[in-house]
Amino acid sequence: MYSKRSITGEESMAFRNVAIIGMGLLGASLGMALKNGPYRRLCWTRRAEIRAWSLAHDAADETADRIEDILGRADLTVFALPIPAIIEFMERYAGAWRRDSVVTDMGSVKGVISDAAERFLIPRGVRFVGSHPMAGTEKSGCENAFPTLYENADVFVCPGSNASPENVTDVEDFWKSIRTRPVHVDVRGHDLLVAHTSHVLHVVASALALKILGAENDGEKALRFAGCATGFRDTSRIASSNPAMWREIIENNTPAVLEALENFSSGLDEFRKMIETGEYDRFERTFAEGKALRDSWLRYKGY
Amino acid sequence: MYSKRSITGEESMAFRNVAIIGMGLLGASLGMALKNGPYRRLCWTRRAEIRAWSLAHDAADETADRIEDILGRADLTVFALPIPAIIEFMERYAGAWRRDSVVTDMGSVKGVISDAAERFLIPRGVRFVGSHPMAGTEKSGCENAFPTLYENADVFVCPGSNASPENVTDVEDFWKSIRTRPVHVDVRGHDLLVAHTSHVLHVVASALALKILGAENDGEKALRFAGCATGFRDTSRIASSNPAMWREIIENNTPAVLEALENFSSGLDEFRKMIETGEYDRFERTFAEGKALRDSWLRYKGY
Repeated sequence: MYSKRSITGEESMAFRNVAIIGMGLLGASLGMALKNGPYRRLCWTRRAEIRAWSLAHDAADETADRIEDILGRADLTVFALPIPAIIEFMERYAGAWRRDSVVTDMGSVKGVISDAAERFLIPRGVRFVGSHPMAGTEKSGCENAFPTLYENADVFVCPGSNASPENVTDVEDFWKSIRTRPVHVDVRGHDLLVAHTSHVLHVVASALALKILGAENDGEKALRFAGCATGFRDTSRIASSNPAMWREIIENNTPAVLEALENFSSGLDEFRKMIETGEYDRFERTFAEGKALRDSWLRYKGY
Repeated sequence: MYSKRSITGEESMAFRNVAIIGMGLLGASLGMALKNGPYRRLCWTRRAEIRAWSLAHDAADETADRIEDILGRADLTVFALPIPAIIEFMERYAGAWRRDSVVTDMGSVKGVISDAAERFLIPRGVRFVGSHPMAGTEKSGCENAFPTLYENADVFVCPGSNASPENVTDVEDFWKSIRTRPVHVDVRGHDLLVAHTSHVLHVVASALALKILGAENDGEKALRFAGCATGFRDTSRIASSNPAMWREIIENNTPAVLEALENFSSGLDEFRKMIETGEYDRFERTFAEGKALRDSWLRYKGY
């Protein structure tokens, strides 16, 4: 079955059995993306009906009632679970993996997951290479899964202390097989980068929504007129994200988020001082710098 | 000529000659929108070639070299100039208007313009009713004008101290004739509302762009990865706005912008404290409140 599906040629195949643990939006989309690829897709998720759904919708080739039966056969395990569950499963099932099999994950934060791998997996000879694909939608659940979710996404790859160069290459090849772009980054660098470029934005957007639409600011008028010119709509968009998900991400990246908040606040404070003291020439120059940075970013991204 | 064009019937016509002063994006679009309506469109702008352009592109019925010749014949004058120019023109040409003719404007801030009208126009018996149509694009200049720019826009209407109920109704009818929705609001209420719902957002977006893409935050990596999931793109969008325009707006609304900045900062600070002290249950509830407010705003707006 596998040889018929191979697209990269058998000689380059490091993994045959890929276990996907968790079949929500990310796990089910991964299973769908891997269809017709070189890997045999084993899946496990807590609810039996979702396991059945995964087979019925061809998001997996195989499943099992007991997670240990899947982990024990996996050459590569991909955790598609919330961060606390990843940590809990690493501890609880640490004995289920074969020595030298490889574990990765799709968590939005790498520090706490990497720490758990160091404590629970690495002492047992299970290789760890953390991953973070920059993909997702505002929806969740396998019913919203689709096979192109990961297409063209960047995937941060953060090798654990026992990952060999081959382990890293194998994980990167795995990600490349679904047309993502792996990027190396160290764990702390990753967590700071996402705190600055993503996590803190959710706090900012939420504070804007609360303060602009909240009762203390004549909420009714604001409700009607906020962002007539679409500024408010876009600036606050991610305030409509999932509160439980963002609580989980920020809770697991507290020091980096505080550092990023501090950084943003200092920028805001510089503007406040210019406004307070009437330094509007400087205000205009600084605003123009921000515009130049953002416009060059837009060009870089090809927007 | 006028009677052929009339769509509202002559009995309801308070204004015949409408002067548009300034033929940039806003003025030229207004002229185009008024085409085929009940008003005779007189226009003036500093550059003779733009006056010629306005006639050639049917954004005006008539023009003149001297602004006084236009103002003296106007039943309604609409300033489509930058805020400092509006104030300057009110002072310089205060003697050019006929007593009881009506002046309005399209400035983004109402306090400083209203103050100028009180000082220069009202003592001479020129009626003042400020306006602020919530319309515009990121472009400027008459070459970017189009006749539907104002369609369905809300227009804040802030009557000056000498405006009669008839003056206000006449100005509202004028705005309705191009399918906008006039909304009464007092001057201070207007300036606070736009500071909270628009002006402060530009400061926030600019601070985000500067701090996230700036050199001190590993600009190169951020340039590549910021907002892979579109959060950064949208949250910072209005940082790409025109620096000179936003300097002008904020400079002319300083106290209200400082109040709005303070309000936003207090919301951000509440979040920071929850993160610092690990009050994540409260964080999640507060984030959920922001989401609920924004989601109800989206429904209200019909997005």
